Amino acid sequence: MAEQIEFDQAHQALQEVSEALENGRFVHVRRQLQDMEPEDIAHLLEASPRKSRDVLWQLTDPEDYGEILDELNEDVKDALVSKMEPEVLAEATEGMDTDDVAYVLRSLPDNVSREVLSQMDISDRLRVETALSYPEDSAGGLMNTDVITIRGDVDVDVVLRYLRIKGELPEATDALYVINEDSQLIGQLPITTLITTQPDVKVSDVMADADEAIEVTMSDSDIASLFERRNWVSAPVINEHQHLVGRITIDDVVDVIREDAEHSMMSMAGMDDDEDTFAPVFKSARKRSIWLGANVLAALAAASVSNMFEATLEQMAAIAVLMTIVPSMGGVAGNQTVALVIRGLALGHIGDANRRELLAKEAAIGLVNGIMWALIIGGIVVAWKGNWMLGGIISAAMLTNLLVAGIAGVTIPILLKKMNIDPALAGGMALTTVTDVIGLSVFLGLATFMI
Amino acid sequence: MAEQIEFDQAHQALQEVSEALENGRFVHVRRQLQDMEPEDIAHLLEASPRKSRDVLWQLTDPEDYGEILDELNEDVKDALVSKMEPEVLAEATEGMDTDDVAYVLRSLPDNVSREVLSQMDISDRLRVETALSYPEDSAGGLMNTDVITIRGDVDVDVVLRYLRIKGELPEATDALYVINEDSQLIGQLPITTLITTQPDVKVSDVMADADEAIEVTMSDSDIASLFERRNWVSAPVINEHQHLVGRITIDDVVDVIREDAEHSMMSMAGMDDDEDTFAPVFKSARKRSIWLGANVLAALAAASVSNMFEATLEQMAAIAVLMTIVPSMGGVAGNQTVALVIRGLALGHIGDANRRELLAKEAAIGLVNGIMWALIIGGIVVAWKGNWMLGGIISAAMLTNLLVAGIAGVTIPILLKKMNIDPALAGGMALTTVTDVIGLSVFLGLATFMI
Repeated sequence: MAEQIEFDQAHQALQEVSEALENGRFVHVRRQLQDMEPEDIAHLLEASPRKSRDVLWQLTDPEDYGEILDELNEDVKDALVSKMEPEVLAEATEGMDTDDVAYVLRSLPDNVSREVLSQMDISDRLRVETALSYPEDSAGGLMNTDVITIRGDVDVDVVLRYLRIKGELPEATDALYVINEDSQLIGQLPITTLITTQPDVKVSDVMADADEAIEVTMSDSDIASLFERRNWVSAPVINEHQHLVGRITIDDVVDVIREDAEHSMMSMAGMDDDEDTFAPVFKSARKRSIWLGANVLAALAAASVSNMFEATLEQMAAIAVLMTIVPSMGGVAGNQTVALVIRGLALGHIGDANRRELLAKEAAIGLVNGIMWALIIGGIVVAWKGNWMLGGIISAAMLTNLLVAGIAGVTIPILLKKMNIDPALAGGMALTTVTDVIGLSVFLGLATFMI
Repeated sequence: MAEQIEFDQAHQALQEVSEALENGRFVHVRRQLQDMEPEDIAHLLEASPRKSRDVLWQLTDPEDYGEILDELNEDVKDALVSKMEPEVLAEATEGMDTDDVAYVLRSLPDNVSREVLSQMDISDRLRVETALSYPEDSAGGLMNTDVITIRGDVDVDVVLRYLRIKGELPEATDALYVINEDSQLIGQLPITTLITTQPDVKVSDVMADADEAIEVTMSDSDIASLFERRNWVSAPVINEHQHLVGRITIDDVVDVIREDAEHSMMSMAGMDDDEDTFAPVFKSARKRSIWLGANVLAALAAASVSNMFEATLEQMAAIAVLMTIVPSMGGVAGNQTVALVIRGLALGHIGDANRRELLAKEAAIGLVNGIMWALIIGGIVVAWKGNWMLGGIISAAMLTNLLVAGIAGVTIPILLKKMNIDPALAGGMALTTVTDVIGLSVFLGLATFMI
């Protein structure tokens, strides 16, 4: 109940803080920010227009900077970090998880990042440098180095006493890792096993085996898929010599899952998934222009097709009026298939073994819907324009285009993936170009031939 | 390393099993299935065309049925469950988490579901019936009832002894819940605290407070958002009397996050996010037709606009050739904004406080890109058609339409949300209709007026 209220408050905080900012009640805002959790301040910053965002950042307790930065969307984080002094940044990252510090530092220019690192104490610096040496989207970039290791030949009681002396465990610790004298991972001891086992039992007798360790080079999407399927809370990371090098926790994996899913949705609309909701106008305009430029080419391709049939269009204006319907339906139907295939590829459901079945199924759906909408649209055109020939032509073009849409909707994303081009980014536009060109060619071609 | 290999194997399993199935080597397939984890079998089933899927299901050990069903996509699960005998289903659900049993049973007709329930033992039945009494997308539908409760006035040592006698803890247990004599939740004892605290300390002295409990009626998307922001592994669920009724674990929340994100992506393309990649042709065709029907209306609206300018089109075919460019660019630019706003609404970034700034920003981007593309396309048209007037007309229409696209891209999703219509589902099509109608009207209207 308390949490429900708190949750609604998070939605309201934005409203309150903006009002207080507008009225210049900075002391009030500072006090409000002090009462908020870092993750809620991050949310507030992301939801704030850029002017208020800078003011809010100034009013935030620098002690919270590190944790807030870690929770921020990449573009928002980069904008804030670029204005911070290296000393403030170094201080902010104190006590943070290695992978989170690496996330904050990754976007900095090399010389600034070196300066921040030089301000850290030596052991922190070494750990962060190790994290930075792995690609951001690999296990090495995602992992934390704060693991608790134990030996297999000790009793459970010894482990418990060791932990009591240690006093505090790293966040989301659900297992201790058992290593041999060469620091190789040989097993793990889930904490739930630890507390349900008699004190005099040896660790090696109750530990789970280590075959679920993640290679340090594994990609973050593959890791997310493993966590999702295995319902893990954390997993150990090993290098090529089986040495334990860190651990990955579910909270970081959840971010990967969210980002991967957002990436598909935003890419399909031609947007960068890092884009800040309140990004600067010119920066956004430039980013989005690339996509608009691609669409100009697609639109000109379609116009060139119509251009070839200029004589037909001159002869009968009704053809020009109707010529947008067939490409439009083909684009919508094809994009339904593209969305299904992109999801299937992302989930690993589509491979060599079932491509043919998928193609046959989508072509069949194209045929079924093609026949249905050919009849309906043909009927509407006959009723509207009183011209049976026009109705027949649009029906034939519709059927052809929906069939093409089904086939292209399966083949285009799969081909793009084979060519290492992101199907979510390029699939929709490539598909629309195909359905525009084919739809217009068939409709105008038939019209030229028949009328 | 072992896991990396296992992961690649999962991708290959599909290929191998399909080949073995095609060659009728059923014994081999059955053996392969026995060696696989339930979640991997679920993945294999989802990735299999429907014919092989039924054969695979027959070859799977019925002991694994329950766990496999829980991991399946809704449409695939429903298809398999509908063919199972109630007794087999009842047996399959034995030992499963309550929320997972509820997920499996929810799609069954009432009489079948009652029959399955009647085959369960009484305590399981009561717990499942409770879960079924909550909406599927609420905390009640998501929670598990297997909580471990303790009293606050006992020592840590007593708790440890109690757990050792119990022997096994529910999956993803990271805290024990402290209740008072009225079964009200008063605190929680993280397991990491339990093992780092001296044995003679009282639970109430080290427990965390209970203000992070989730109300049983909270929606699953709000819960996902809380888990993401707070980095929780599990959280207690309470009813309106503060009674502890269950707990929610991160693995179920991850599914919600994945589904919500998929929902946005699939809805924007006019697809149902439950759609099975290998759904039956007629079922899919029917589902997708609704969306195609909506698009027919949109396409006819655009055609009606062109129809009003039939005389102009008759006069100059070049206008017909060029008339698709402006609506196409407006649709793409507008959908970029729609994607940004849909994500912002889903993340709770957009509210009354910042709507105006967002609108101003997107209108400004529309203006900037409008000016740029107006100049480029105007130039192309002048070069292509050698007609300065046509170039001027298309430039003016382009600028207007990209500005409209920016404004409509912000207002349409927000308005739809206010009207309780899913903006991800209806936003793109509503936007495209607006940009088609405005783009065509301005271009053809100016052409009629000027030429």
